[in-house]
Amino acid sequence: MDLRAVRQPADIKLLNQAQVDDLAKQLRERIIQVVSQNGGHLASNLGAVELTLALHRVFDSPKDKILFDVGHQCYAHKMLTGRANQIDSLRQFGGISGFPKQTENEHDVYGTGHASTAISAALGMARARDIRGGREHVIAVVGDGAFTGGLCYEALNDAGHTKTRMIVVLNDNQMSIAPNVGGLSNYLNHMRTSKAWLHLKRRLSAFFLKLPVVGKTLYNLLQRVKDSLKNFFIKDHFFEALGFHYIGPVDGHNERYMEKILQRAKGFQEPVIIHVVTQKGKGYEYAEKEPWSTHGVNPFHPDSGLPRSKAQARSFGKAAGEELVELAKKDERIVAISAAMVEATGLGAFQKAYPHRLFDVGIAESHAVTLAAGLASHGMKPVVPLYDTFLQRAYDQVVVDICLQELPVVFILDRAAMGGADGPTHHGVFGTALLRHVPNAVVLSPRSVEELQSMLRYAMSLDTPVFIRYPRTESEGMQELPYGQFLPGRWEVLHPEGSLCLIATGPMVKEALEARELLKKQGITARVVNASSIKPLDIQLIKELSLSKTPYYVLEENMLAGGLGSAIAELCVQEGLQQPEHIFALADAFVPHGSHEELLAYAGLDANSIAGSLIKLKEGIA
Amino acid sequence: MDLRAVRQPADIKLLNQAQVDDLAKQLRERIIQVVSQNGGHLASNLGAVELTLALHRVFDSPKDKILFDVGHQCYAHKMLTGRANQIDSLRQFGGISGFPKQTENEHDVYGTGHASTAISAALGMARARDIRGGREHVIAVVGDGAFTGGLCYEALNDAGHTKTRMIVVLNDNQMSIAPNVGGLSNYLNHMRTSKAWLHLKRRLSAFFLKLPVVGKTLYNLLQRVKDSLKNFFIKDHFFEALGFHYIGPVDGHNERYMEKILQRAKGFQEPVIIHVVTQKGKGYEYAEKEPWSTHGVNPFHPDSGLPRSKAQARSFGKAAGEELVELAKKDERIVAISAAMVEATGLGAFQKAYPHRLFDVGIAESHAVTLAAGLASHGMKPVVPLYDTFLQRAYDQVVVDICLQELPVVFILDRAAMGGADGPTHHGVFGTALLRHVPNAVVLSPRSVEELQSMLRYAMSLDTPVFIRYPRTESEGMQELPYGQFLPGRWEVLHPEGSLCLIATGPMVKEALEARELLKKQGITARVVNASSIKPLDIQLIKELSLSKTPYYVLEENMLAGGLGSAIAELCVQEGLQQPEHIFALADAFVPHGSHEELLAYAGLDANSIAGSLIKLKEGIA
Repeated sequence: MDLRAVRQPADIKLLNQAQVDDLAKQLRERIIQVVSQNGGHLASNLGAVELTLALHRVFDSPKDKILFDVGHQCYAHKMLTGRANQIDSLRQFGGISGFPKQTENEHDVYGTGHASTAISAALGMARARDIRGGREHVIAVVGDGAFTGGLCYEALNDAGHTKTRMIVVLNDNQMSIAPNVGGLSNYLNHMRTSKAWLHLKRRLSAFFLKLPVVGKTLYNLLQRVKDSLKNFFIKDHFFEALGFHYIGPVDGHNERYMEKILQRAKGFQEPVIIHVVTQKGKGYEYAEKEPWSTHGVNPFHPDSGLPRSKAQARSFGKAAGEELVELAKKDERIVAISAAMVEATGLGAFQKAYPHRLFDVGIAESHAVTLAAGLASHGMKPVVPLYDTFLQRAYDQVVVDICLQELPVVFILDRAAMGGADGPTHHGVFGTALLRHVPNAVVLSPRSVEELQSMLRYAMSLDTPVFIRYPRTESEGMQELPYGQFLPGRWEVLHPEGSLCLIATGPMVKEALEARELLKKQGITARVVNASSIKPLDIQLIKELSLSKTPYYVLEENMLAGGLGSAIAELCVQEGLQQPEHIFALADAFVPHGSHEELLAYAGLDANSIAGSLIKLKEGIA
Repeated sequence: MDLRAVRQPADIKLLNQAQVDDLAKQLRERIIQVVSQNGGHLASNLGAVELTLALHRVFDSPKDKILFDVGHQCYAHKMLTGRANQIDSLRQFGGISGFPKQTENEHDVYGTGHASTAISAALGMARARDIRGGREHVIAVVGDGAFTGGLCYEALNDAGHTKTRMIVVLNDNQMSIAPNVGGLSNYLNHMRTSKAWLHLKRRLSAFFLKLPVVGKTLYNLLQRVKDSLKNFFIKDHFFEALGFHYIGPVDGHNERYMEKILQRAKGFQEPVIIHVVTQKGKGYEYAEKEPWSTHGVNPFHPDSGLPRSKAQARSFGKAAGEELVELAKKDERIVAISAAMVEATGLGAFQKAYPHRLFDVGIAESHAVTLAAGLASHGMKPVVPLYDTFLQRAYDQVVVDICLQELPVVFILDRAAMGGADGPTHHGVFGTALLRHVPNAVVLSPRSVEELQSMLRYAMSLDTPVFIRYPRTESEGMQELPYGQFLPGRWEVLHPEGSLCLIATGPMVKEALEARELLKKQGITARVVNASSIKPLDIQLIKELSLSKTPYYVLEENMLAGGLGSAIAELCVQEGLQQPEHIFALADAFVPHGSHEELLAYAGLDANSIAGSLIKLKEGIA
């Protein structure tokens, strides 16, 4: 059967095994093809093909609810649920999302993007079902990587206690985004490698419970602690301790066997976990060999596995990592903490240089931050690189552990901008509003790699928390603009003369400079200021603008509410200063997925839109 | 030895057992006395007396680091570390904190207040020690309640993986703030009740490994899977699965035996968990009988256990709970989720009326919110009552699970104000800034019980997320002011006439009304507006003020940055309106502990300070 002819999961239920195997092949080909074009999550999706086929053949989606945790393994699901013909638009502006999304398709029963939520959400659905008196199945598919997140444990603990009927599929590919860490991962490995385990358990248990007399010692033991013994054999297991039944380990690439196991799981009236072992990158040589670097990829040549284009722009993360290696040479107190993203956040060089001063804690941002607090409270100077959006997982720890105790932890927050293609769960546009109101926090946003490195040196010289937010790569033209030395509360004046002033921060500095050129053509001169110190503000500069009655505008790639413009507006109220004419920022809505350029235009934050608006505002004034 | 003579832990190391027992008695007496005067955490502190004595006799604080998770069990520690003579000032403005606090005493090696952080922080200290080449011990004391939090699991998983030497004391009093929930709690119960368990495990394991031949079947089994069997007996255990050694269960009120166990734990070169069983409220009849209601208490009569005064003010939480019971009668989709605080958040009546529609998930706010999302995504209308400060634990889930998916979940956020005595970790002053920038969020703050109930009815009629923030009790005078019907984006005008306008929200409405009276005496008339709809704002009202050039002031008990005044200032910029004259809000600093009245004055937010400032501002203008 041609994959493109699959309109709904019902279409694949009656296929024979050869047809199913052929469909698996087609799914893999399409995944490789699409991701090689559009970028996306490769290795994880390749590993989940048979599992997804088995799930859709055994269960009756969307009546039965199948949730994919994070969503790094949902491409086959998308294609089997009527989207095979749209898959070329994956992660493109206006196209289908790289993650499950409720508004996109009825089979995407829950939207994901951040790890470890699926069991909680599935438990909610199962409880909703029980209240309604429904009979459907609820299945959460969770990678072993996501299992390092405490949220999974909170959910298992709750479900195991109330014995709510649900199925958790632990898709164990032995790594998350990077090789997996954590005691549990050792444990899973132990389970995988000793396949005889369960067999033994079943046999031993039966053996003992039937055994009449095996010498006096054993007999007495048995008599005295019969119940304990039963519990010992039946309950003493990580997941079983939490109240789940456990089935596994199961070969996740044996589709037929997977179906049998899933059928069996259907019969349980209590929560059950199925431990499925899969291979990340399965079926594509380059991904099998390098499952870590092919977790999330940019477009590549499918025949060679090599990237289509070398990125021209300089990576902020890489630059930060290099600077940290230099700083760590001189200061032995500097340590780094990663939440399963050593390479992705530019820490590769640091890990190589100082393996014993880097701690990879798994996908566990809350713990990463409190761990940093513990280290900082006893003499260390920790650096915590995270994606801006994932810091959201540790806001409470930022407030209570770091800032309240004024501990010297430096947060470097990557992807602090819109885009790219990962969409609303991944845009880094809330960070400023999230951090600005926290006492003792210093909040910075560099425009260039040199500024970032200068900021890092400054941050390391402080004894208080610092948060540095930046996009993935430096904007065009920034490398050519020489940068001096970062000073807190002092903004860099890039163009000192003009009838109005553009105060821009981070990636918006480039747009401000371009808008200035566009305005010049209309006979309007504009000053341009790089407001890289968000907290503290450059109060002096605002006062001068106010005193000279210069109209000024704020440009930022943040939510309007609580952002840089908001900070300036508050200052103006409290100090009785002239308020900004306008704040160019993100309106009160989630931003869809797309490239940075597409999204800037979408949000009216590209140089053209800004210049256009300024000319209109100017005309309105005149 | 007189407790008041204890200056440091070294003073108690050489005491004989009778002296230690006597000290335990004195500690209990002082705890009961102080808490009966000042309020505080009673039952949990009474339960940890012997444990704390044993810890300070065996370890060498502050060289050895003893961390108390949450801090609900730190009073004995405070008294044994030089603060016995200050304990009368516990939780009083300017007095010692009810929680461990680094700046207060060198033995408070880490500040706590929110649950489940101690293992992460202790791991940080242990790693700092290892980098420095130190030898000290690091001990995290964690209640079984805090173990429902995923953060504990993230930390155990990390520590167990790297085998960092540290000691975790699991203080198992079989309940957290309320009776404990969760699969793990069942498991711990199983461990406690089958004391023979460990004994059996040791004997069975020895037995099997020595056994030469016990019939052919068993012999073959043993031969084939010898390693598996070893692992089975040695590793197959919840904590051991995570990489920890396990000792327990141990009687936590047998001080002498506790010392022995702690001494033994000192010898481990790897992470070890000691499972200590204690009784909450131990040694005080009224607390032993009612360990839940005496977890955190107001001042009471020590002879009867009865509260010193019946609170006069109406409780917002209780009123919300009553309204929910009414709403749930008519709407079967309404369910409630609690994070271990059913009674504390006013859900008692709801639990009684609809036990199957209330889910207590333990101290697991992140899971509570994602669970609500799961329920809401499939037809339910969940209400999530939390303390405002604990919502910080679920910010990411609020953004990604609730607001991005526009799910109809109603958050009722108690203690959303300064005070009381719990201090900076418990003030609810960040919530507005935290929520206002999140798309699709509606943010409200009532001034009275009637307004809250009207808001709840409104919230339940919506299909989108709503966040209602309120203090513990209604302000004086609010009950007498009749309330109409809540309308979003429409503010209640309490006094329509005046030369200036006070826009106040939540508990500040009372201060505004009082300030108005004070101003009247100075010949200044003031309008008073109740801005209970924070998002959306009453744009029309601001426009009218701007148009009529009326000077207006914003009064709020929130952080200035990102608060209501900030929202109004942003609006003024974007719409070109007249900005407020001043925002009365909290400055950029953490607020200490104290009563609400003391803290209002401290922050300059009481009616007197506000009226005084307004008169000064007015004089400055005139």
